[in-house]
Amino acid sequence: MLRLYDYLSSGNGYKVRLLLAQLGIPFERIELDILKGETRTPEFLQKNLNGRIPVLEIEPGKFLAESNAIMFYLAEGTPFLPENRWERAQVLQWMFFEQYSHEPNIATLRFWLMHGELTEERRTALPQKRTLGYAALEVMEKHLAGRTFFVGGRYSIADIALYAYTHVAHEGEFDLSNYPNIRAWLERVRAQPQHIPITQD
Amino acid sequence: MLRLYDYLSSGNGYKVRLLLAQLGIPFERIELDILKGETRTPEFLQKNLNGRIPVLEIEPGKFLAESNAIMFYLAEGTPFLPENRWERAQVLQWMFFEQYSHEPNIATLRFWLMHGELTEERRTALPQKRTLGYAALEVMEKHLAGRTFFVGGRYSIADIALYAYTHVAHEGEFDLSNYPNIRAWLERVRAQPQHIPITQD
Repeated sequence: MLRLYDYLSSGNGYKVRLLLAQLGIPFERIELDILKGETRTPEFLQKNLNGRIPVLEIEPGKFLAESNAIMFYLAEGTPFLPENRWERAQVLQWMFFEQYSHEPNIATLRFWLMHGELTEERRTALPQKRTLGYAALEVMEKHLAGRTFFVGGRYSIADIALYAYTHVAHEGEFDLSNYPNIRAWLERVRAQPQHIPITQD
Repeated sequence: MLRLYDYLSSGNGYKVRLLLAQLGIPFERIELDILKGETRTPEFLQKNLNGRIPVLEIEPGKFLAESNAIMFYLAEGTPFLPENRWERAQVLQWMFFEQYSHEPNIATLRFWLMHGELTEERRTALPQKRTLGYAALEVMEKHLAGRTFFVGGRYSIADIALYAYTHVAHEGEFDLSNYPNIRAWLERVRAQPQHIPITQD
């Protein structure tokens, strides 16, 4: 059985959990407390040198890291990843956008405000991350004008990747009221069969 | 003919240029000066809402952004991307690692030190980026122990993605002298057929 090393409130972990639920693939979930350094132990670093969850253990001793790489692996040959080369490239474009322009701002502010104390360094970095987070939302809002999903008019892992931290953006004090296209798209994602919330393991 | 919107000193642009050279695919290069805001004009934002190079125009009006998504698109069906599903997933793992854990630290410090003035905000962020940049190099160094290339013992787009900013890390004042595995790997990448330097258009 697949084994997922995970942390329940992580949007990156949630991406994989949600996709596995929608694919109907059973898996064993191993919860690690990232706040207690459980992903930086010598034992865990043997699974992922980069010391982060999620990690999928595909078979004993065979580990894959990076949420979006894991989703691509699981989605190949399923309706969650287009077969068409051009559409597949666009799915990847949005997943790289998510990891570079969206997650480091929107997810990071959520993490800081939910868990961490706001150190001096974080306080200095916050306004820039706020600006870049809204810039990412702006890109999404414009792209979604006249579109139902991010790529090819169909729900795919590009939507899952972007949904994970957008639907909890308010926990990082991002206000989505000026983003009607994003809010309608969040509803469409939530309405997909076998959807599960981020808090469900 | 393919058209690449590019900026010569960008490692992200270089990834695509290098792969195109090694694939022997001719292309037209359009240089945009990111320092003068040429990627934020209304005209360019129609090509990429996110206002960044590189962008590949695959046919007139059909644009693909994100360097690693562009490389994946170009490499499908070539020796630069493994056909095996597990190896392909690992290539993506390293490309997502590059965009999340490597580029925002190593490339950003290079950019700040080469081009920008060091604002107060940047000065505050610098030590953290220095630490995270070395952490990324540490991950690479350990992974490369006993390996010739990042995935499957063969040169792939995972190597190109990581080579782009690692081989100019000294321009961001990263010292590679304690990373012998990385230095040997850089030499192996440089020795690949049809290699071009970052400064060659």
